[in-house]
Amino acid sequence: MLKSIAVITSGGDSPGMNAAARAVVRTALYEGVKVWGINDGYKGLLEENMFEMKSQSVSDIIQRGGTFLGTARCPEFETPEGRKKAYDILVKKGIQGLLIIGGDGSLRGAQKLSAEQGIPIVGLPGTIDNDVWGTDYTIGSDTAANTIVEAINKLRDTASAHSRIIVIEVMGRKSGWLAMVAGISGGAEYILVPEETYDLDAICDNLRTRYARGKRSSIIVVAEGVGSGTAIGKIIGDKTGIDTRISVLGHIQRGGSPSVEDRLKASRLGEKAALALISGLSNIVFGFQKGKIVSIDLHDAVTNIKSLDPDYLRLAKILS
Amino acid sequence: MLKSIAVITSGGDSPGMNAAARAVVRTALYEGVKVWGINDGYKGLLEENMFEMKSQSVSDIIQRGGTFLGTARCPEFETPEGRKKAYDILVKKGIQGLLIIGGDGSLRGAQKLSAEQGIPIVGLPGTIDNDVWGTDYTIGSDTAANTIVEAINKLRDTASAHSRIIVIEVMGRKSGWLAMVAGISGGAEYILVPEETYDLDAICDNLRTRYARGKRSSIIVVAEGVGSGTAIGKIIGDKTGIDTRISVLGHIQRGGSPSVEDRLKASRLGEKAALALISGLSNIVFGFQKGKIVSIDLHDAVTNIKSLDPDYLRLAKILS
Amino acid sequence: MLKSIAVITSGGDSPGMNAAARAVVRTALYEGVKVWGINDGYKGLLEENMFEMKSQSVSDIIQRGGTFLGTARCPEFETPEGRKKAYDILVKKGIQGLLIIGGDGSLRGAQKLSAEQGIPIVGLPGTIDNDVWGTDYTIGSDTAANTIVEAINKLRDTASAHSRIIVIEVMGRKSGWLAMVAGISGGAEYILVPEETYDLDAICDNLRTRYARGKRSSIIVVAEGVGSGTAIGKIIGDKTGIDTRISVLGHIQRGGSPSVEDRLKASRLGEKAALALISGLSNIVFGFQKGKIVSIDLHDAVTNIKSLDPDYLRLAKILS
Amino acid sequence: MLKSIAVITSGGDSPGMNAAARAVVRTALYEGVKVWGINDGYKGLLEENMFEMKSQSVSDIIQRGGTFLGTARCPEFETPEGRKKAYDILVKKGIQGLLIIGGDGSLRGAQKLSAEQGIPIVGLPGTIDNDVWGTDYTIGSDTAANTIVEAINKLRDTASAHSRIIVIEVMGRKSGWLAMVAGISGGAEYILVPEETYDLDAICDNLRTRYARGKRSSIIVVAEGVGSGTAIGKIIGDKTGIDTRISVLGHIQRGGSPSVEDRLKASRLGEKAALALISGLSNIVFGFQKGKIVSIDLHDAVTNIKSLDPDYLRLAKILS
Repeated sequence: MLKSIAVITSGGDSPGMNAAARAVVRTALYEGVKVWGINDGYKGLLEENMFEMKSQSVSDIIQRGGTFLGTARCPEFETPEGRKKAYDILVKKGIQGLLIIGGDGSLRGAQKLSAEQGIPIVGLPGTIDNDVWGTDYTIGSDTAANTIVEAINKLRDTASAHSRIIVIEVMGRKSGWLAMVAGISGGAEYILVPEETYDLDAICDNLRTRYARGKRSSIIVVAEGVGSGTAIGKIIGDKTGIDTRISVLGHIQRGGSPSVEDRLKASRLGEKAALALISGLSNIVFGFQKGKIVSIDLHDAVTNIKSLDPDYLRLAKILS
Repeated sequence: MLKSIAVITSGGDSPGMNAAARAVVRTALYEGVKVWGINDGYKGLLEENMFEMKSQSVSDIIQRGGTFLGTARCPEFETPEGRKKAYDILVKKGIQGLLIIGGDGSLRGAQKLSAEQGIPIVGLPGTIDNDVWGTDYTIGSDTAANTIVEAINKLRDTASAHSRIIVIEVMGRKSGWLAMVAGISGGAEYILVPEETYDLDAICDNLRTRYARGKRSSIIVVAEGVGSGTAIGKIIGDKTGIDTRISVLGHIQRGGSPSVEDRLKASRLGEKAALALISGLSNIVFGFQKGKIVSIDLHDAVTNIKSLDPDYLRLAKILS
Repeated sequence: MLKSIAVITSGGDSPGMNAAARAVVRTALYEGVKVWGINDGYKGLLEENMFEMKSQSVSDIIQRGGTFLGTARCPEFETPEGRKKAYDILVKKGIQGLLIIGGDGSLRGAQKLSAEQGIPIVGLPGTIDNDVWGTDYTIGSDTAANTIVEAINKLRDTASAHSRIIVIEVMGRKSGWLAMVAGISGGAEYILVPEETYDLDAICDNLRTRYARGKRSSIIVVAEGVGSGTAIGKIIGDKTGIDTRISVLGHIQRGGSPSVEDRLKASRLGEKAALALISGLSNIVFGFQKGKIVSIDLHDAVTNIKSLDPDYLRLAKILS
Repeated sequence: MLKSIAVITSGGDSPGMNAAARAVVRTALYEGVKVWGINDGYKGLLEENMFEMKSQSVSDIIQRGGTFLGTARCPEFETPEGRKKAYDILVKKGIQGLLIIGGDGSLRGAQKLSAEQGIPIVGLPGTIDNDVWGTDYTIGSDTAANTIVEAINKLRDTASAHSRIIVIEVMGRKSGWLAMVAGISGGAEYILVPEETYDLDAICDNLRTRYARGKRSSIIVVAEGVGSGTAIGKIIGDKTGIDTRISVLGHIQRGGSPSVEDRLKASRLGEKAALALISGLSNIVFGFQKGKIVSIDLHDAVTNIKSLDPDYLRLAKILS
């Protein structure tokens, strides 16, 4: 059993990372294990920017967005030399295992560190995009989806007032999960995702017909992976002749106080991951499959591509 | 295959009932089936207060709390004569199947109607308490949990400012699910649920010790099934000598615009339930088990008692 | 005393327009005066798209964003012929006075209609920009400022996590009011408004110094009237070498359920404006000066330029 | 000119107290004046629980509810001996002036301290009740009104679903301001305030008539100063025979992230109060009259009774 572990957040922040780190810290202390917090991701690790954590270190953070540990880009860690240096620092500090919370880029880095240096690594999927293979859920995705739906509600007000079309570009380079879930929940008329082809001419014909019949508002959600919402909105406006506005939500999708779903699942994952790491397990990522917590092979998680639940695609068609 | 169905909401309203009814209506129309909306629950049914629905009948409702169909108590329906009358009205209207969205009381009524009159019935669990057997999820429970957590955040502000203890009574007569999920997510110090005994003396001793050490706020969430939050808060205030305030959240827990989770799951359940009813299935309730949609025997759903996931009890201890 | 009036919303919608229209309708009915609602602004007026309103016509709308009456652009109304036609329609309908809710463009149109045709006109300032001369307040400005501050809170989370600078472009072509009020309330480090010059080099030097000392986040609010937030953000990123992200909030600023301030002030203005119009007054706009409702000459309101309270400029410096 | 001042929060906390304290601190530092923060109100003062503040001491607090300085009851300060002791501590610390943020009870205490010991005192009205004489505004009142309106929106959902009457008890022992402003903004059917008599029989008759005509929801807002919402709700339910539910909002009204209005006005008041105290002024409270910042004699502020704007009473009648 490990006696000292460290928790680190890396890559883009997501709401719920604090809840996960809090659960890791409190579980470790509950088990009598020393736990370090590393500031600013791998960059902080290479700068030995870390501190030993007490229970109070994670008080009053479960409701905060972002990550109190900080995160940063770190090119040096992408080199074998950088990872060797990171390993030496962990050894020097007496840290026997590393718990990493981040997206697939960050998990990939952790996997290399483990493969090269043999230090135990357990990962948690922290990204709003919900695009990590092997888990139905990633920390922050529910809060981000709710943030987008709140924006859709606001945009619907002004769209209806003006009989406009509004095109909303949301995050999701490789995955349309956010666009699909927020679009269905926001009652969007169309949802464009990278996983599915679409016929812009057909969409524009249909929009023209429905507005001619008196329809007063349409929300079209576009995942950034499909292309620029601005460009697509321009085409739709030109083809339909209907007043069309574009909204690129950007980084507000990453922030905000985490939802119950994110606080709870992040807390549950944090506990399980801490227990696993302490028990000596390594090279795994914890996530949810069919509502149950599962451990996924770290290598599989970072090499496979997650696909979108076809139920969503069908549901979007029926409900719109 | 059925040619005409009706959708009804009954019992206490919950956020997401509108999303579910919307999915039922649009799925039926998509399948070319006539669909009626019955107003004000079984009372409206006995008064023939119903209307045929079009796709626009459910526009602009997915974001609304409550139920646009309305709901009401109906003692007459609790009698065999009342249910016979209800059946005759459905037959007269050419309605071949009934889709009911409500809590277990409402589902029990539907089960009797089906058993006595043989009309196809499919149910959806609509209650914020998440206490329907056979499903991990009920429509409205996620929104209610988020509403409670928002209240906890506000109460934490004023608790910290005054070094107070705040006792929050939340809904849940038979089930501690809401209290547990909201309590863990809100970082509550103690969570009292009907499924578990508690030692108020031990709690008060512990609170005294922690406040003596400088702790500035404690949130104690009490499920109404445990007893009156007011009474429990009074005891805690007296035993600890610490300034203790009580908040009984009441009906605000039932309202509010549904969360993404509730909109999405309600929509998915609505589609599946409509398809099942149209295909002639009966005496089933649709819900989620381990993240997947499942159908539960209606009789089992209304006779068995749901228990609370022990993971929550353990997690609450470790994190508080 | 007039016996029949009409209410119309025009130009960009703003939260609280519904509250104002509701107050106009209920005040007129309370006074025994017939009141019409005109759909889709001047366009609807020219299409005779209007209906007589009852008290229930404005039920359940005070909490809605946008305008239930709708609004639209109308080039025809910008011509004397168009305005003559509008006048003839009003006369035909027996409408003796027009109450217009809109921004200064819309008020300008109303002023011409009144000048050319002599029909009584009373205006209310409905715009989130708070840029109408003669009034400290315009309907929707408080809700928009709160929407921006909520966005700043979300962006602050992710800015702190990454030690980033975030540049937020907000609405306000001629006026920096929204940027200034939201920036001060959001604790923004810099606020760029059209009313004031700024030294980007000095700002960048200062940012470099503060980040070198460990500052972790900066929010820079830019009113669109100053220039493109994207362009300014690019310059700041290049000059400082600090990771800088841009957020263009766009139309979400126009939507959302109105705040108490907007509901209350819009209701108070609606009552006063309706009473004034009914009593035969014309060519005035109602607004707030120093917390009191005042009437402003319509011609003055649309010809003078409002300036920004210098207190805000000073306060922003001291508090940042 | 004073060289060292202290800021203290006392009595019930209210959202925006942090924004005010932040403005006091930053203004003092901007003027080159030393500024102390006193923890836990007069109790902390008597315990010498205070610290010198830097600009960073008030970073990241403008968006927080409650008061980071803390507040507490302090019987000892209510005695001349206690106030003498407080004065001696201030002198010992070299503190030449005290800036107090609190309700009228707290201001009264400060006024006595000043009268007995001659130390300069400047006050700011911090209370959600908006019941301090001489100012149209108190810090926290706008946020509390918005919190109540959000609750009304949630309660309206479930009231409409069930055709219920809902009685909401809100804060305000002496003043009906909160009830009136939130009630008008929430579209309440009736608003009961201590400043005005009411006829419960007439209200019940009217409710019966309207429900008989098909009305589906009524919200009745009751200021606690009028009496128990629970008792009044019971009477209404009995007299009308309509299903009536009661909601006692309680302490959630005190918490929450402050609104733009509260952040901005608290910041403006904080600056002005700090400048006045530093310049040697004393025995004044800063507030708003007709939208302008004014200074009120401290003795007048704590001895006179504020009345409710009759416009609100009239408006409530016309709009409901």
